[in-house]
Amino acid sequence: MSLAVVGSVALDSIRTPFKSVARVLGGSCTYFSYAASFFTPVKMVGVVGMDFPAKYLCELKGRGIDTEGVEVAAGKTFSWTGEYKFDMNVRETLKLDLNVFASFSPKVPDSYKKSTHLFLANINPGLQLRVLEEISSARLVACDTMDIWIKSDRLKLLQLLKKVDILFLNDSEARELSGEANLIKAAAKVKKLGPEIVIIKKGEHGSILFSKDWHFVAPAYPLENAIDPTGAGDSFAGGFMGYISTVKKITKEEIKSALVFGTAAASFCVEDFSVNRFRKADRAAINKRYKEIRTFTQFKDL
Amino acid sequence: MSLAVVGSVALDSIRTPFKSVARVLGGSCTYFSYAASFFTPVKMVGVVGMDFPAKYLCELKGRGIDTEGVEVAAGKTFSWTGEYKFDMNVRETLKLDLNVFASFSPKVPDSYKKSTHLFLANINPGLQLRVLEEISSARLVACDTMDIWIKSDRLKLLQLLKKVDILFLNDSEARELSGEANLIKAAAKVKKLGPEIVIIKKGEHGSILFSKDWHFVAPAYPLENAIDPTGAGDSFAGGFMGYISTVKKITKEEIKSALVFGTAAASFCVEDFSVNRFRKADRAAINKRYKEIRTFTQFKDL
Repeated sequence: MSLAVVGSVALDSIRTPFKSVARVLGGSCTYFSYAASFFTPVKMVGVVGMDFPAKYLCELKGRGIDTEGVEVAAGKTFSWTGEYKFDMNVRETLKLDLNVFASFSPKVPDSYKKSTHLFLANINPGLQLRVLEEISSARLVACDTMDIWIKSDRLKLLQLLKKVDILFLNDSEARELSGEANLIKAAAKVKKLGPEIVIIKKGEHGSILFSKDWHFVAPAYPLENAIDPTGAGDSFAGGFMGYISTVKKITKEEIKSALVFGTAAASFCVEDFSVNRFRKADRAAINKRYKEIRTFTQFKDL
Repeated sequence: MSLAVVGSVALDSIRTPFKSVARVLGGSCTYFSYAASFFTPVKMVGVVGMDFPAKYLCELKGRGIDTEGVEVAAGKTFSWTGEYKFDMNVRETLKLDLNVFASFSPKVPDSYKKSTHLFLANINPGLQLRVLEEISSARLVACDTMDIWIKSDRLKLLQLLKKVDILFLNDSEARELSGEANLIKAAAKVKKLGPEIVIIKKGEHGSILFSKDWHFVAPAYPLENAIDPTGAGDSFAGGFMGYISTVKKITKEEIKSALVFGTAAASFCVEDFSVNRFRKADRAAINKRYKEIRTFTQFKDL
């Protein structure tokens, strides 16, 4: 089993009501890889600029994350500057410097091409399709997307959705993609576009997974100190895909567990800026949180 | 064991994007009693006007709901006219005719005074306190409240909270009452005001129950056709209190089950206007939904 991911690697600057940070390690590919690395080795495909601190590449490698597919290109690293107000569910982009990410052309190393599991993080669906073609051996393919692609690149996105097994998206995106206000109806419509599993993320309200004829609901892990939600969705997908990459047979029970591992991973992400909280965690801490989630969600049969 | 409730009985007129209804049976006391009546007999304290259809009183009695404490006063029945837009989480009050409810002075029949369980639905905290004094035998007392009392009658509300075991309130009210944006911190502060258990309702996002040193999270039952959320919170409390009134010993496990029964009851309420869906349900249907909630929330241990 081996897990590959394509997405962004960034140096983010983030303001919250409590604290601000500048040029910290971020990006969908980074958060995903960090979260997944608690479960399995990960192969990253991305691009950084000449200003990207080499220490981060060392750190990722030290966690069993293969960075051979991370191109170092002439120019500066992609950088997002954003702000959260007291309501952590709403973020405002203050500045977006695409830099080397503007002309990102994913280069998939040969050593990645036999990957069995693939996550296409939120980038242009045309690029997601290209990477999918290059890693055609993948037995399980998941992707993320966002409102701009739903609006501006819908045809390519629909083409992609026919080829993926799992789609992660948030509630407003599910409504936008399906044209349905009700999430159950929205999920049913989205499933018809291709993915057998649709996972709708609701931030602090948890997530709902819709499969063929069943669904599963996981509440978020209640946090007393939510510091920064940046990367929570990618960490969620990382926990999910990281775990599912390790199971011998993908059963309903394993998919449920994967969603809970995603929930646990996302909660760690939100507890600090960047990947700081992950740096202090290990698989035992993730398992502990999984068990904690059990204690506040499980109840007796009649 | 016996369960009493005080609250409003109303004739509501409701508009939604799909349909409108006029002068249908409503009110916190009604929804609570209907939901609780699947589990245990209920004793209602409330007031209606001369225009209140007698058939409703017959119907309530037919369900094992004691209406001796429902005064029929000179004047018209309390009436709420409201509208929901596509986002069912937000409601607008178009018209509020307090009528006989304006001078409501709860009269607790002697036969209610030995009730072991009491729910003080959302009315003026001064009146809640008075009913509590009259049913002083109650071993378990729960109450609901709302933003207007938090703002305009805070001292009386704080006096009440010292005397109740369980407080039901929604997320914005918990924030308002505590002055804390974070729900976990908010619940901790509210617990310090008296109630040993604080249940925060989050509408379509479910609920969180906070007890002394543990909490429990129940997602809402996902509904494909949410028709009218009016009364969902009271039905939720009714399912909770109805079930808990039937258990021999209130344990952590029973409290969890009560929250799930509340969730099941609330989902029935939302599936139609007024108490229409309840009219077609029975305890077996409630139990079936409880078991269904289990199927989409339970997952394996590590």
